[in-house]
Amino acid sequence: MEESVLGEWRELLGFESIGADAAHLKECVSCASWLRKWLSKLGFEVELLYPGRGESAAEAKLPPPVVFAERKGEEGGSTVLVYGHYDVQPPDPLGEWKTPPFEPVVQDGRMYCRGANDDKGQTFALLCGMRDYLASEGRKINIKIVLDGQEESGSRALSELVPSLRRRLAADVLLVCDTSAAPDLRPAIVAGLRGVSHFTVNLTGPSRDLHSGEYGGISPNPAQGIAELVASLHLPDGSIAVAGFRDGIENPTHDELAKAEALGPSEESLEADIGCEPCGGQTGKTLVQRNSFEPTIEVNGIHSGYGGPGAKTVIPSSAFAKISMRLVPGQSPRGAFAAVRAHLEDRCPKGMKISFEDVSEGTAAFRLPLASPLFRLAADVLSEMDPRGPAFQWCGASIPVLSLLREASGAAPLIVGWGQAEDRIHSPNESYSLAQFDKAREWGRRILAAL
Amino acid sequence: MEESVLGEWRELLGFESIGADAAHLKECVSCASWLRKWLSKLGFEVELLYPGRGESAAEAKLPPPVVFAERKGEEGGSTVLVYGHYDVQPPDPLGEWKTPPFEPVVQDGRMYCRGANDDKGQTFALLCGMRDYLASEGRKINIKIVLDGQEESGSRALSELVPSLRRRLAADVLLVCDTSAAPDLRPAIVAGLRGVSHFTVNLTGPSRDLHSGEYGGISPNPAQGIAELVASLHLPDGSIAVAGFRDGIENPTHDELAKAEALGPSEESLEADIGCEPCGGQTGKTLVQRNSFEPTIEVNGIHSGYGGPGAKTVIPSSAFAKISMRLVPGQSPRGAFAAVRAHLEDRCPKGMKISFEDVSEGTAAFRLPLASPLFRLAADVLSEMDPRGPAFQWCGASIPVLSLLREASGAAPLIVGWGQAEDRIHSPNESYSLAQFDKAREWGRRILAAL
Repeated sequence: MEESVLGEWRELLGFESIGADAAHLKECVSCASWLRKWLSKLGFEVELLYPGRGESAAEAKLPPPVVFAERKGEEGGSTVLVYGHYDVQPPDPLGEWKTPPFEPVVQDGRMYCRGANDDKGQTFALLCGMRDYLASEGRKINIKIVLDGQEESGSRALSELVPSLRRRLAADVLLVCDTSAAPDLRPAIVAGLRGVSHFTVNLTGPSRDLHSGEYGGISPNPAQGIAELVASLHLPDGSIAVAGFRDGIENPTHDELAKAEALGPSEESLEADIGCEPCGGQTGKTLVQRNSFEPTIEVNGIHSGYGGPGAKTVIPSSAFAKISMRLVPGQSPRGAFAAVRAHLEDRCPKGMKISFEDVSEGTAAFRLPLASPLFRLAADVLSEMDPRGPAFQWCGASIPVLSLLREASGAAPLIVGWGQAEDRIHSPNESYSLAQFDKAREWGRRILAAL
Repeated sequence: MEESVLGEWRELLGFESIGADAAHLKECVSCASWLRKWLSKLGFEVELLYPGRGESAAEAKLPPPVVFAERKGEEGGSTVLVYGHYDVQPPDPLGEWKTPPFEPVVQDGRMYCRGANDDKGQTFALLCGMRDYLASEGRKINIKIVLDGQEESGSRALSELVPSLRRRLAADVLLVCDTSAAPDLRPAIVAGLRGVSHFTVNLTGPSRDLHSGEYGGISPNPAQGIAELVASLHLPDGSIAVAGFRDGIENPTHDELAKAEALGPSEESLEADIGCEPCGGQTGKTLVQRNSFEPTIEVNGIHSGYGGPGAKTVIPSSAFAKISMRLVPGQSPRGAFAAVRAHLEDRCPKGMKISFEDVSEGTAAFRLPLASPLFRLAADVLSEMDPRGPAFQWCGASIPVLSLLREASGAAPLIVGWGQAEDRIHSPNESYSLAQFDKAREWGRRILAAL
């Protein structure tokens, strides 16, 4: 990689663009401005968009901006919409980082930094490939670019903007680089993503924390109540216990399942990766089924009462759990949440009140047909890069905003990413392989040339 | 009450003797010194005791001292050990006090101040009664006094001192004034206290927090695991599900149960107090049974994963719960914990590791025989003060240091307090009725004269 490109990448990574944290808004704006300048040099018209134009920018409650860029190609050229995000996950727990999270460090062929992969690294690699395409091979393609500043926290600004941007977003292909290569590093085309929705459930009991001796046996205990609610979501075999939650689920075809299994990670590699037995989900289903084709209900956090050193013998007055659901094709996010909500309300422990907050609208899952002309073209390009040809992935993860952009733009998603499990995205010491960066860049150049 | 006694009480209350706060050590020492002087005037030999004599007093890590006082009576006189504490709860939240927490104010027949009741007020009333006894009626009784400076935070110094004080603590009766009268203000003798022990249980799963999409269906989830463990401790009817936990429990006699029920609070008053239905404990048992005669397992805290605003869709790498148990007579703290530990270990969710920390040794419960000569004597004295005669209380709470002192001194506990719910101990605007102070004082004089 040229020193100049490495230098640019370092600059981009240096911004502490934590989109979820209002205290980091300035850093997000600086990052977006850097991208605007970078794209402008390539002949793009670039805007930083904020929803709710009525407000003055001085009102400070602005979200990180959406970078929207457009560059006209030749008459009759197809239109590609590139989606990526410049926001990153918060770096906590800080103590586990071996180098400061926002100081890019290259070591052993890897760039270490929060966002090195997700998604400043992967997006920037794709954009570098686009620059290579523009510089050398052609100007045929119309290119539109949307760079999100809140992907890690729900893409709110972009979601609000999309209805007013429909015309400007219209495209043939939605090109995204925010996923991983196959474990054997074969290039991988995403053929499906799970949907996601999340909420917080609150339980309240006594009006204050109570002495566990004076009131033990008298007061109900919300810490115990929230545990009972959470435990009730699954059966002993790990399957989901919520009536109606699975309604409408479309099972994968034989071909899809076979291709997915062929690519599936081994128990051993997963155990080495996560540090414990990979035994989540329902007993009797394969890892691939559980991660790609089955929905999940996961507790992301549960909190109640005393958490400091030693003991404080209280009955806490309240408790909450933060819960997310991964959905599969056929499930409606609204219906799935309604089922879980009804399940929890029906089981609200005696003496307590249940309420819900931070309920996300949620995003449905999707699966793409393997035999589409776009997938065949992409497979040809990827076969030139790697004679083994591409693998297909049905990701356990979700990119909620893609469902929205897909719908608004009318474009067919082409999601090809180059990450690896060892990149540790969302975790301390995130990194991205320089070799994979180069491949992502080459892919960007080649696919634009081929479309 | 004489102005001189009121003046002394005010002086005692003015010390900010927050035993749990190292920053208040000097105030605690001043308070203890004031008590030494006060007791010396009555002919007591008084010492301020610190554990670990090896250390020099200059080393500043000293706890608040234990006031130990002794006054020989006549040959053959019985020996009374008075226990009280001069430390108080921190006054937070400060903003809710109507007058400064350490400025004693008399209003509408009540003394307002932190510690007005708990336990500077009640202990001082008892000591004033003792002074009255010494001044007027007799010198027969040997009196030993232990005034704790850390009761509100675990009585650590006293607990360390007790083994070396066994001989000096030996007594016939352990006299304590740190509890409440019956709701109808009848005098009340404590006939039982629950024991207590506590621990923290930790679960670990994946070696880091994981993306709930990429690893959902693959990784086990410790937040869900801790919820399942906690939920498993109780059956749907609220009873305890742990095999062996109830081993050895001695049920109350018919008489004890009837006396306790006669004194029991109403559902309505408890609901008004705690702000929710008082439906803790096992369905089908009465409030009095559940609070006084049944053990509990309470979750004091449960924590795992994300707890901030919005959502963070992770599978947490670890989880913990802080759990305390209230024990009833017949249960050994060690045996009860062993049963809970085995129960939790047996159910350790797949793929996770379980461990325990902050395990307390625990204190056993005790129940005192109602027909003992001591209780009959006390009942006679109390009947002279109130023709209704005494009520008996079986407290849901625990005073761990009393079990220790009872064992070390060989004395029979005689725990009679004069507080009321409206005294708001541990809360802002603590107060104590002057009329109840007078009764506590009278009780002190009368019981010493009668013993």
